[in-house]
Amino acid sequence: MLTLCVRNVLFRSFPSQSSSDAVQLTVRPCSSSRAQEEDLHQTRTLLRLCVDRYFLSPGEANMELFRRGMSCRYGPLGTELRRNLLEQWWHSVSRTTAQVFGINTLSSSSGDTATGAPRKLNIVENEHIKQILEEKEVSKDLLIQKIQVLLQRSPTGRTSCLQGALEQFVPSLELVNRKLPFGLAETGLCFQPSGGSGCPGEVTRASLVWFCSARASSQWLDHWTRQRLKWWRKFALSPSDFSSSDVPEEELEKAASRGVRIIYSFPWGEETLETLWNRGDAELLRTHGGDRSKLQCRDGRKSVPHVISVTANVDRGALAFLSNSLQTLKKEDSRQRLQQRKVLKLHPVLAPVKVALDIGRGASVELRQVCEGLLKEFMEAKISTWPGYLETSAGQLNTKYDEMGVLFTVVVNENTLESGLLQVRSRDTTVRETMHISEIKKFLSRYITAADNV
Amino acid sequence: MLTLCVRNVLFRSFPSQSSSDAVQLTVRPCSSSRAQEEDLHQTRTLLRLCVDRYFLSPGEANMELFRRGMSCRYGPLGTELRRNLLEQWWHSVSRTTAQVFGINTLSSSSGDTATGAPRKLNIVENEHIKQILEEKEVSKDLLIQKIQVLLQRSPTGRTSCLQGALEQFVPSLELVNRKLPFGLAETGLCFQPSGGSGCPGEVTRASLVWFCSARASSQWLDHWTRQRLKWWRKFALSPSDFSSSDVPEEELEKAASRGVRIIYSFPWGEETLETLWNRGDAELLRTHGGDRSKLQCRDGRKSVPHVISVTANVDRGALAFLSNSLQTLKKEDSRQRLQQRKVLKLHPVLAPVKVALDIGRGASVELRQVCEGLLKEFMEAKISTWPGYLETSAGQLNTKYDEMGVLFTVVVNENTLESGLLQVRSRDTTVRETMHISEIKKFLSRYITAADNV
Repeated sequence: MLTLCVRNVLFRSFPSQSSSDAVQLTVRPCSSSRAQEEDLHQTRTLLRLCVDRYFLSPGEANMELFRRGMSCRYGPLGTELRRNLLEQWWHSVSRTTAQVFGINTLSSSSGDTATGAPRKLNIVENEHIKQILEEKEVSKDLLIQKIQVLLQRSPTGRTSCLQGALEQFVPSLELVNRKLPFGLAETGLCFQPSGGSGCPGEVTRASLVWFCSARASSQWLDHWTRQRLKWWRKFALSPSDFSSSDVPEEELEKAASRGVRIIYSFPWGEETLETLWNRGDAELLRTHGGDRSKLQCRDGRKSVPHVISVTANVDRGALAFLSNSLQTLKKEDSRQRLQQRKVLKLHPVLAPVKVALDIGRGASVELRQVCEGLLKEFMEAKISTWPGYLETSAGQLNTKYDEMGVLFTVVVNENTLESGLLQVRSRDTTVRETMHISEIKKFLSRYITAADNV
Repeated sequence: MLTLCVRNVLFRSFPSQSSSDAVQLTVRPCSSSRAQEEDLHQTRTLLRLCVDRYFLSPGEANMELFRRGMSCRYGPLGTELRRNLLEQWWHSVSRTTAQVFGINTLSSSSGDTATGAPRKLNIVENEHIKQILEEKEVSKDLLIQKIQVLLQRSPTGRTSCLQGALEQFVPSLELVNRKLPFGLAETGLCFQPSGGSGCPGEVTRASLVWFCSARASSQWLDHWTRQRLKWWRKFALSPSDFSSSDVPEEELEKAASRGVRIIYSFPWGEETLETLWNRGDAELLRTHGGDRSKLQCRDGRKSVPHVISVTANVDRGALAFLSNSLQTLKKEDSRQRLQQRKVLKLHPVLAPVKVALDIGRGASVELRQVCEGLLKEFMEAKISTWPGYLETSAGQLNTKYDEMGVLFTVVVNENTLESGLLQVRSRDTTVRETMHISEIKKFLSRYITAADNV
C-alpha cells in the first residue's frame, strides 16, 4: 500500500534534466500516518544527500530515474560506487569458479530474438526514415509497408543479456570440452521500454547464464540463490534488509519453471535487485534452430542443457547500498542542541573515496606540497583519494566526508612538518589517531585489503 | 592505396553473425605485389588467431566488425583484454591527477543535442510507431507528420561522450570551486551510424573532456597529446607503430581550431585510435543557452573555459595491441622442418590470462586437487588463471598458450606431490624454471606488479 502511494506522489517529472538548481522535492503525504511520513523523509534525505555529495547529478528527472533503479547521470562518487560494485560482481561471479567465462555481446542486434520475446525498441537511422518519408508518388499503403520493412531490418535494443549468452553457447562448448556445468557472464547496458509513458530508459545489468543438466537445474537454482544473496549481504550494513523469495506462479516468465527474486526493502517499499530463473531448454533450442546434436553436452548421458539465468540490476544495487548504509545518529552538541549526524557507512570495498587529504593549521605552501606528495603516493597505490586541500572552504569537513562515505580523513598540519606526524580520523569510529607519515599508505592499503578478504 | 584495396576485398558481409563454422576469409588480392600479399596474410593470421584463441566469437560479420574498430561479440579472452585496457585508461586518466573526475551519463538522450550535431540515430518504441501505422482514417500527410513528431521526441543514441560532459560542466563547478583547469572522464557505449549501408554499429569510447583557460588551451592540447601517446606506447611491443599527427585543416570539425590524431599502423593501413580536439567555447556556450555568467571560472580573470576533447576508441585499441603484440618466429624443429611459432606478447597488465595451470605425468586425482588449490589461491589474489587441467586434450599446450598470450604456464606433476616443486614456463623467454609451490603466487604477483609500475 505504502509503496504505491509514495511512488505516485513523491516526484513530479520536469523536462529540464540538467538543472543545477537546489533540489526541491514535491511531497504530499497521502495519509498522516507517522510511519509513512518517516519513510518519505528517509527517501528525501537519501536522494538529497546523493545530489549534495556528488553521487548523482542534480535535476529531478535524474533523481527519479535513479529512484526507479535505472541508469542516470552519476556524479564522480556515484560513478566510482557503481564501478566498484560492477568490479565486485565480476570478480565474485566470473573469477571464483573455473567454469564461468566472461563474454561481451552487443547492446543492439539485428534480426529477431530467438527467445521469442517481441521486438520492443528499434534503433533507426534518421537518414533512412527520412528517405522514405520524402519519397513522392508513393501511396499511403506503400509508405506504411516501407516503414514496416525498415523497422523489421533495423537493430533492436536488448532488454537483457540472455539472448547474447544463448547465442554464445555453441562457440563456448570448445572451451569446456562439451562438459557441464558452465556459465557465461556479462555486464552491460540494456534498454527498458517505457511501458506506455515517456521515454525508454537504460539500465546496467550484470548477467550470469548457467548451463547445467536438466536433473541438476533445481539444485543449481538454489545454489546460485544462496551465493547471490550471500554476496549482497556481504556488503550490507544491515543484511536483513536483503532477502529472497520465490516468484509467484502467476508471475512466472513463459519459459521458466521456477523463479527467485532477491529483494531489498527500500524506505518506499520492496524492489527486486536480482532475478534467477530456471528456464529449461526451450529458448536455447529455439536460438539454435532446434538442432539438438549441436547442443548436446557430456554429462553422464548426452543431453541438451537447461538454462539458469541470474540477472542483477546494478543501478538499483547501487541505490540499495546507499540506502542501506545511510545512518542517522542523533547527538547533542556543546550547547545541548540536538544535532543529526548523517554517515554513509558504505562497505570499504564499495566506498568511492577511501581517504580525504586536508590541511590543518600551518604554513600553507609547505603543507600543500606534503599533501601533493601523499596524493601521488596514494594514487599510485590505487587508493582513491579526495583532494580536500584544494578546496578553500574548510567548513564542516567531517560532516561532508561522513556523508560522502569517506573511510578516513588525513589532516596534515604544522606538526607534520616538524615531526612527520599526522592526524587520521576514522569515519566509523570518529576516533582521531596520530600516525607517522611513513606509515599511512601501508595502514590504508591493509585496511582495504582486510575488508576485501572478509 | 593498399589500405583501400585491402578493405574492399578482404571480407564479404554475411547475414549470419553467430555462425560457428570454421573461419573462411575470402581473399582476392588486387595486385600481385609481394608486400600486399604479406599484409593480407598478416591480417588473416591475426583474425584467425583471435577466433581460435577465444578473443573473438566466430562468424565473418563479427570479425569484420572487429577489424573495423567496432564493438563485437568478444570471447572470454577478448572480454578480459578490453576490461584490462579500460581499467588502465581509467586509472591513467582519472586517477593520476586530482583535477579529473569520473562521470557517467546516458547512451541515449531526449531532446536535441546542443553541440549542433544533427540527430542520427533514433531509439523508437515499436508500440508507439505501430499505433501510428495502424490508425485508420489518416491522410498520408498527417501520417508523415505524426511519424516526424514521434522521431523528434524519441531519444537519440549518442555518438560520443562529449555532450554529456558539456552538460555536467555546471554541476561540476562546485567540485572545483570554479577553478580551472579540470576534466570529466567517462567510458561507455556510443553508437556509430552506418553511413549508408548496413546497420548502425556500437563502439566503446573512453573520453576525457578538459576545461581550461582560452590562452592555455593550445598548451593543454600538446600536453594531452604527449600523455596519451606515451600511454599507448607504454603497452606496446613495438612503440613506433603508434604515432600522432595533426588533423589537416580541411578535415577539422566545425567547432575545432586544431585536432590531433593518435594513429596505429595496422597491416592494412593506418587507423585512428584516439582524437584530440581544441574545441573553443562555442559548444559549451550553446549547451548552456549562452549564459556566460553561469560558465565563468576563476583563472586570473573571469572567463568561459575552452574545451579540449580526448576520445579513444577502445575496441580499436584492443585490436591495435593484439596486432602489435603478435610475433611470428621461424624455427627449425628436430626433423629440420621449418616451423612457425606465433606468440602474442601482450603487455603483462593487458594479458587476459596471466597463468595457465596444467597437469603433467602422475596420479591424476591428486594432481587435480593440487591444481584446484592453486587455482583458488591465484583467484583470491586476483591473478587471472586458465584452468588447463580441466581439458582432456593435452596436445600442443605451449603453442596454444603462446597464442593466447598467457604469461606463465605452471605444470604440476608427480614430482610436485613428492617435493612440492613445479615447472614454470615463461611465454617471453620460453625458459622452464623449477619453483616451490609455496613461492609461485608471490612470484606471479610480483611480476605483474612490477610490469604495472614501469
